[in-house]
Amino acid sequence: MNEAKILFEPNTVVLIGSSKIKQEVGMSSPRLFNNVTCNMRKFFKGTTFVLDVEGKEGYKLLENLPETPDLAVMMLPPDSSLQQAEECARNRVKAIVAITGGYNRQQRQRLTKLRGDYGIRILGPNTIMGVINTTNGLNTTFEKDLMPAKGDVSVIAQSGGVGACILDWACFHGIGISKFAFTGDKIDVDDVEILQYFSEDPETRVISLYLEGIGNGREFVQTAREIVKKKPILALKGGVTEEAAQRAVSHTASIAGSDAVFDAAFRKAGIIRLKDVEELLNATTALARQPPLEGDNVAIVSNVGGPAILAADAIIKNGLKLAQLSQETKRKVERRYLGVDAINPIDLIADARAERYSFVLDRVLSDTNVDGVMVINMLKSCFFEPEDARAVVEASKKHPDKPVVDVPGGGEDFSLVYKVLRGTNVPVYNLPEKAATVLRVLRAYSRIRATTRRKTSPKCANARGREKKE
Amino acid sequence: MNEAKILFEPNTVVLIGSSKIKQEVGMSSPRLFNNVTCNMRKFFKGTTFVLDVEGKEGYKLLENLPETPDLAVMMLPPDSSLQQAEECARNRVKAIVAITGGYNRQQRQRLTKLRGDYGIRILGPNTIMGVINTTNGLNTTFEKDLMPAKGDVSVIAQSGGVGACILDWACFHGIGISKFAFTGDKIDVDDVEILQYFSEDPETRVISLYLEGIGNGREFVQTAREIVKKKPILALKGGVTEEAAQRAVSHTASIAGSDAVFDAAFRKAGIIRLKDVEELLNATTALARQPPLEGDNVAIVSNVGGPAILAADAIIKNGLKLAQLSQETKRKVERRYLGVDAINPIDLIADARAERYSFVLDRVLSDTNVDGVMVINMLKSCFFEPEDARAVVEASKKHPDKPVVDVPGGGEDFSLVYKVLRGTNVPVYNLPEKAATVLRVLRAYSRIRATTRRKTSPKCANARGREKKE
Repeated sequence: MNEAKILFEPNTVVLIGSSKIKQEVGMSSPRLFNNVTCNMRKFFKGTTFVLDVEGKEGYKLLENLPETPDLAVMMLPPDSSLQQAEECARNRVKAIVAITGGYNRQQRQRLTKLRGDYGIRILGPNTIMGVINTTNGLNTTFEKDLMPAKGDVSVIAQSGGVGACILDWACFHGIGISKFAFTGDKIDVDDVEILQYFSEDPETRVISLYLEGIGNGREFVQTAREIVKKKPILALKGGVTEEAAQRAVSHTASIAGSDAVFDAAFRKAGIIRLKDVEELLNATTALARQPPLEGDNVAIVSNVGGPAILAADAIIKNGLKLAQLSQETKRKVERRYLGVDAINPIDLIADARAERYSFVLDRVLSDTNVDGVMVINMLKSCFFEPEDARAVVEASKKHPDKPVVDVPGGGEDFSLVYKVLRGTNVPVYNLPEKAATVLRVLRAYSRIRATTRRKTSPKCANARGREKKE
Repeated sequence: MNEAKILFEPNTVVLIGSSKIKQEVGMSSPRLFNNVTCNMRKFFKGTTFVLDVEGKEGYKLLENLPETPDLAVMMLPPDSSLQQAEECARNRVKAIVAITGGYNRQQRQRLTKLRGDYGIRILGPNTIMGVINTTNGLNTTFEKDLMPAKGDVSVIAQSGGVGACILDWACFHGIGISKFAFTGDKIDVDDVEILQYFSEDPETRVISLYLEGIGNGREFVQTAREIVKKKPILALKGGVTEEAAQRAVSHTASIAGSDAVFDAAFRKAGIIRLKDVEELLNATTALARQPPLEGDNVAIVSNVGGPAILAADAIIKNGLKLAQLSQETKRKVERRYLGVDAINPIDLIADARAERYSFVLDRVLSDTNVDGVMVINMLKSCFFEPEDARAVVEASKKHPDKPVVDVPGGGEDFSLVYKVLRGTNVPVYNLPEKAATVLRVLRAYSRIRATTRRKTSPKCANARGREKKE
């Protein structure tokens, strides 16, 4: 059994902190302790014990608890945390989430030794936010009342800050999360073990990573390469430039390594690399909701000319092609809508409403020359109404083998259409350039799946056919 | 006098459309006519006449109006528009904004001839949204009740759709606009003339362009090069790839030319080129609120480690440098805050509040090794509160010669801090990568100003010194 499982699926959890501590080192503070306690009591469906080492009730020994917890969440400064961790190990607690940072080398060694001596598993130290599992409500973050929507994306973040940024973005934009792990200094449980757990987890469909460094590169690459046959892995890497990498060493004590090495490792592993948190989450959402792009040919269906031209630029810059529509598609569209010139990008003209989008999208998605579609539906300067966007969802559902992404470009336009499409299978982006990046990622994953399946198991070569049955 | 002025500063405007027309060609429709009428009646401080060519009151001849309008806004299909345009020209109307598109070659020639025969100036045709001036309330867009906040950014957009996207973004994100021109097919008034008008306009401080093609490249470059000595010009170019450029020809009838040619022209003109609407508006906001970056050395002041590392990566990738803080700065910061390691990027630790930001920002901005600062203030995983962000504004005001940009990374965090900083001089971005791009643009404008001033007027060589007095 994968031992990382206990970090996400404990039955009983003990929160160990102090309500009185004054030294706020590495985040240990009464406020953090209190907030984590509130979150666990509010969300966690299992049993939560709270051990306040300086509370009014005095120092309650772990062994006085009615049962032995599976998991201990440690929120004390390094020395006190170590003392408690030793108690936990002796009492057969299975795993520790070490929230606090600031451990020196000797303190790290003492923590590592517990793993060797007792087999207790340790996440962290310096995880800052710990773990989230939206299924059982486990939530060791200290953001009061913060719980992402349940979904099929699982995340590993080495940095508390970047992880918090990803989490905040996901919550704000309604991206459904399954599991979230803040790994921090990774003295025991590492990316490989968590990846393996996510790989077997039926509630995880897409995996996203923020990394500054990896310990065991070879194992990481091998593990990822197996996983991407079934589930895409996306990564954002911090410490890309030499200057930043130096700083990363002191941040999470990881050897960052040269960026070229990482690039090669990601390529070999079949991990798709993104440039920032927004790209990472945009691509994650698309992979969670839409099929991979099985060819290079993209059609653009728009109610405005200029943004369609920017979209065409972006499609080409992302290594894709403008699909050549078949004569049949062209004839059918042009016969029905006078004034519409059905060459790609198709300008449906500013008065296009749901009916025109429905008909044209159905024709275009039926065209064998088309592998995927970017829809642009501006409201400003057009007659399109937010509700009309449901036509895009219908068309996409009718053609589940080809990805469809939607772009109501701008600020308010995006926000109005987003309200309609939120929770549907069609991902929405506020600029055509962002949608084009996402289509590149959907294409990349199609290629990765084909390559990894072909190389390692010949019978799975017809990746696309197989996928449909799954 | 610059004749483009009358397009933005008319005293009297006549709106010419039809309340009954059925053929919705090139956007002419009763709905559009009605919406433009509503907007003009609501916002315009001058006199508005409405000429409904098929209204209940019958065909009112232009000459029956109590006075001759300065500007006519044409919202009829090409043939009827032409007929009305001829009436306007004969009646000494000074200028026409031709909203409708769909003119064929012959119709264009007839329109152009009016300019020659009568001296009437024409914006468009195919401007779709026409013009906006937030000072006198002129607003010929057909988005009901849409009026951007008054500000010092002026925009020229060749495409109605991209212009609408820019306008929508500006309205939603509170970017103050002075003038907005949708230029469409540009048969008469072109970018050069509007640029010259913006150059002389005391209410315009930053100029942003969306272009697909330019007619008179040499004049455009010369004009821009003069303007950028005083005001920055930013541009987004559509039709960059050959495939999209072909499409642009049919879109706005402009010869797009090879992208390399444009790149060279922009460089020569001192125009800063951006990659998408978001970058364009992010950079525009920064240039409107902050001074140029007069050197390469950027300090990062953050309450989280990971995002600061991503910020450092982005600073380097944008051709800037991580500032080396002086020993004095380092000593003063470290003496006051135990545990803070004052090397750049400075990690203020997750419990930093306004007081710590104030002190450190003041020290860092006083450091002669630092030319500008990227502040990162996450809320999630930190103790920072949105109101604490006022400390950033105070520090920035105390050091007006060095640009400061702020990054509360994420979704909700960004939105909460944005509410506090909206309307201040500190621009806010949701990711460090976006802030780094903006700093690159602030650096680029400092270089452009130095170069153009030096080359053309030796006495202005000390550009920075001069600017302070202006």
